[in-house]
Parts: sequence; C-alpha cells; structure tokens
Amino acid sequence: MGLSMGRPRRQIVLENPQLEEAYRAVKQGISRRRTLIVIGNCWVDYEGRASSKLEPGERIVLFKSDGSALIHRPRDYAPVNWQPPGSIFRTRLDRGTLVMRVYRRREHEVLEVAFDRIALVAVLDLVDTGEFHLYASEEDMKQAILLQPSLLEEGFRPVAAEKPVEPGFIDILGVDGDNVLTVVEIKRKAADKNAVLQLKKYLDIFKVDSDRPVRGILVAPELARGAQKMLATLGLEFKALSPQKCSEVLKQKRGRRLTEFLG
Amino acid sequence: MGLSMGRPRRQIVLENPQLEEAYRAVKQGISRRRTLIVIGNCWVDYEGRASSKLEPGERIVLFKSDGSALIHRPRDYAPVNWQPPGSIFRTRLDRGTLVMRVYRRREHEVLEVAFDRIALVAVLDLVDTGEFHLYASEEDMKQAILLQPSLLEEGFRPVAAEKPVEPGFIDILGVDGDNVLTVVEIKRKAADKNAVLQLKKYLDIFKVDSDRPVRGILVAPELARGAQKMLATLGLEFKALSPQKCSEVLKQKRGRRLTEFLG
Repeated sequence: MGLSMGRPRRQIVLENPQLEEAYRAVKQGISRRRTLIVIGNCWVDYEGRASSKLEPGERIVLFKSDGSALIHRPRDYAPVNWQPPGSIFRTRLDRGTLVMRVYRRREHEVLEVAFDRIALVAVLDLVDTGEFHLYASEEDMKQAILLQPSLLEEGFRPVAAEKPVEPGFIDILGVDGDNVLTVVEIKRKAADKNAVLQLKKYLDIFKVDSDRPVRGILVAPELARGAQKMLATLGLEFKALSPQKCSEVLKQKRGRRLTEFLG
Repeated sequence: MGLSMGRPRRQIVLENPQLEEAYRAVKQGISRRRTLIVIGNCWVDYEGRASSKLEPGERIVLFKSDGSALIHRPRDYAPVNWQPPGSIFRTRLDRGTLVMRVYRRREHEVLEVAFDRIALVAVLDLVDTGEFHLYASEEDMKQAILLQPSLLEEGFRPVAAEKPVEPGFIDILGVDGDNVLTVVEIKRKAADKNAVLQLKKYLDIFKVDSDRPVRGILVAPELARGAQKMLATLGLEFKALSPQKCSEVLKQKRGRRLTEFLG
C-alpha cells in the first residue's frame, strides 16, 4: 500500500522477484504511467544521435511518468545513459531477460536495458507539487550587476569584472556617475569584517597607484555584526542587495533558469 | 538477501517504515558505504555556491557509495538537487522527521533533506564493473575530421563546415591536395542510396556555379546495398570511417569525454 495521504494510492515493491513477476508489475506500471524503479544486473544499448554500449553490472534504473529515463551506476552523480521526457516505454521478456525499451520515434533514438537478475522493482505513485526556489550565487550576483548596473546605483558603469590584482580578484571595477573609480566586492550572505578588509585591500591598490579618489562598495544582503562600524571607519560603503533580487534580474534578462543541470 | 551472485551480499528493503526503523537502516547503510534509496515526502534546503529551497513533495533520493547524491522528482530527467562525489552523509531524527545531511566541508556546501513520511528505503550492495563504450555522433565525426583532416585523406584542408546551401547543409567543404573543391557528407551508419543522392545534390550546386572540377566524398563506416553502384554511376567517392575511430581521435585531441551529461 502507498503513503497514508489524502487519496488512496498503491505502490508495488518486489524484492528479488522472478523475471515474470517483475514483468507483470512493470507492464502494469507503464500502462498506468507510474514512476518505476528497476534495480538489478543489466546491460544497455543506445542508438541515436550517438551510440553506446554498457557492459553488464548492477544498476538503478528510473523510468519517470513523463517518459524520461535514467540509468545510474553505484557511483558518479551523472547517469550513464538517459532519455528526455516524452520517450515511450515498452517491456518484454526475451530469452531469460526482462527488456525495457525506451524510444523516441521521431528522433530514431532507442535505449534498451536488459536485466537478467532483478534485486528490486518498485512501482510508485508519487505526488509532487512542491515549488522549487533557486537563489543566486555570488557569480550570478556579479552577472546581474553587469547586466543591470543600476542595481548598484544610478550612473554606475562597470569597466572590468574579476580584474586580476595582487591580493586576489576584484569582483567588479567601474566608475560612478561622477567618474569616480569604484571597487565592488560582492557577498551572497551577510558580509562580515573579513569582507570589509578584503575590499579595503583592493582599494589600497588603486590609492597607491593614483591620486584620484576611489570608492569601495560592499554589496551583500546585509552586514554582519561589527562590519558596519569597520566600514565607516575605513570610509567604505555598503549597498544592500539580495541574491533573490539578482535571480529575478537574471531571469528577466536571460529568460531562462539560472542553473541548468545539463549546462 | 541480495542477488545470488559470487559473494554473499545483503540488501535491506523497507516498505512504508516508521521513521525510527528507516533511520536505523539508513545509518547502517551510510557506515557501510552502501548505495541508499529513500523515497517519501520530503523538503530540501541547499546552501553553497547558490542556495535553494524545495517545498514538500514525494521524491526519490539516491545516495551513492562514492558520496554523490541526487534528488529526483517524479518528472524531468535532471535532478532538482544534487551533490558531487566526495560529499559526506549524516542522518538524524529531528522533530518527527528523518533528516539526511549531505555536505562538503571545504566548499561550505550543505544539502539537507527532511522526510516526514517514507514510502520505501532500500540499502543496496551493488557491484558494477561493466565498461561503458560511447561511439561518436555525426557531429562528433565532423569535428574529428576538422581536427584531423587526414582522416579523410592526406592533403585535405577543410574550408567550411555546415555551409548553408540550398537543399540543406553541407557537412564539410574543403579542398584536396590538388586544390580541387571537395564536398564531404558524413553518415554514422551504413550510407544508403538517399545519402548518395544527398551528396549529389550538394555537388550539383558547385558544378553549376563554376567550371572547376568538384569531388564528392561520402564518409561512413560502410555502404548499404546498392549505394556503391549508385556512387560509381554518379562519379562520387566513398571513404570508410567509423564513429569509433572518430571517438578515439576526439578523445586524443580533446583529452576528455565526448559527451558529458553536465555539458
């Protein structure tokens, strides 16, 4: 029986089943568009845009209800083979093996997994409506400011990003509305005293090199304890900016997800 | 009991377990570096280079023995959250939830999954030594020839790839050792009569445009029935080249895997 939730649901779990028994469960699961997991000794052939052959071994194979499929070895985070949503699943018993066929007709793509021993079959009825929120990295925050410099302040113009300087890398170097050189250091969490000292070090490079005034702005969602006083003492500034805000700007400007697993 | 193979192995499968029971199995699995699957209603927090929050829903979570972890929703082929190999797993019972903590200390990265209901726990002892062979796509074959033109013939120099011409796209356009314009059409499987006609069409474009002689070379691992005769009749040539060979060249030249799931 399934999880004790609102609607009645069923799951089938077979441990070390005979191939015939596994076949019946899998076939039913496919026809009901359930999520399937088949674990066992298998080999895999793929023929499509490229082709591949995976020799026998024990793997975890996921068949999702949207028609995507993944073959996972006991190691590595990337699947060894996979098919995108929209694939069609078929199963058959064939000369002492349970064969799972995953194909996309239009793309002439076929992935076949043949199991000769099965350790576990699970036919699942999963409900997942939870939202996923992704907030930006420091790199994303930098990109957001480069794409929309007014996030820092009106009139700001970046002239360089990750400029290599002696004590490390400056996140963004630019000039403000009055043409004053401005060094920007970005933190995605509350900026502490170390962040202030880091910014100070970058600033000193330019103060030594020229008589021009230089501004230093620490960008972060907030300041940690003690950082405000140190900033004021050193004549540096703070600009509150959250990773969330940067995520929104990037989404808007780029029109796509910030981080895509498939790169 | 596990699969009936050479060495004695054990797997633990718990259907709809109490959290305490699941906790004991998971804890043992982690200490023995087993592959774990936990399926149930959960929520996820990630804090590292970026941060993310996944609201409650039913998911499949894989914890591999190399320290990689993947959280899969019932849809999409990409995991919603993941951690690379080398992560450390910890588990605890916390206010009515089973918490799985996946972290990398040096990178200040933490992924936490909290389950309040568990549908299935599997502690697996998988053995997978099978080799994976990946053979090149047509695009890979093209890249291999561009990187090492002698794969086609000595003296060949590519001048364009995927040149947009009227009836489609030419794979490679180049000149041979005698400066004769050469059109190359690539197939990753046995090239049939359609492939020959396709090459002929591309060739005709250049024959109309100039009085220069033009060579047409069909590159494929082999020719399908009837294609050889048609090639000869039309004055075209064949060069045998396998996707495997191209894979090797690319590996050598690029020093990395041809296709990487993470792009």
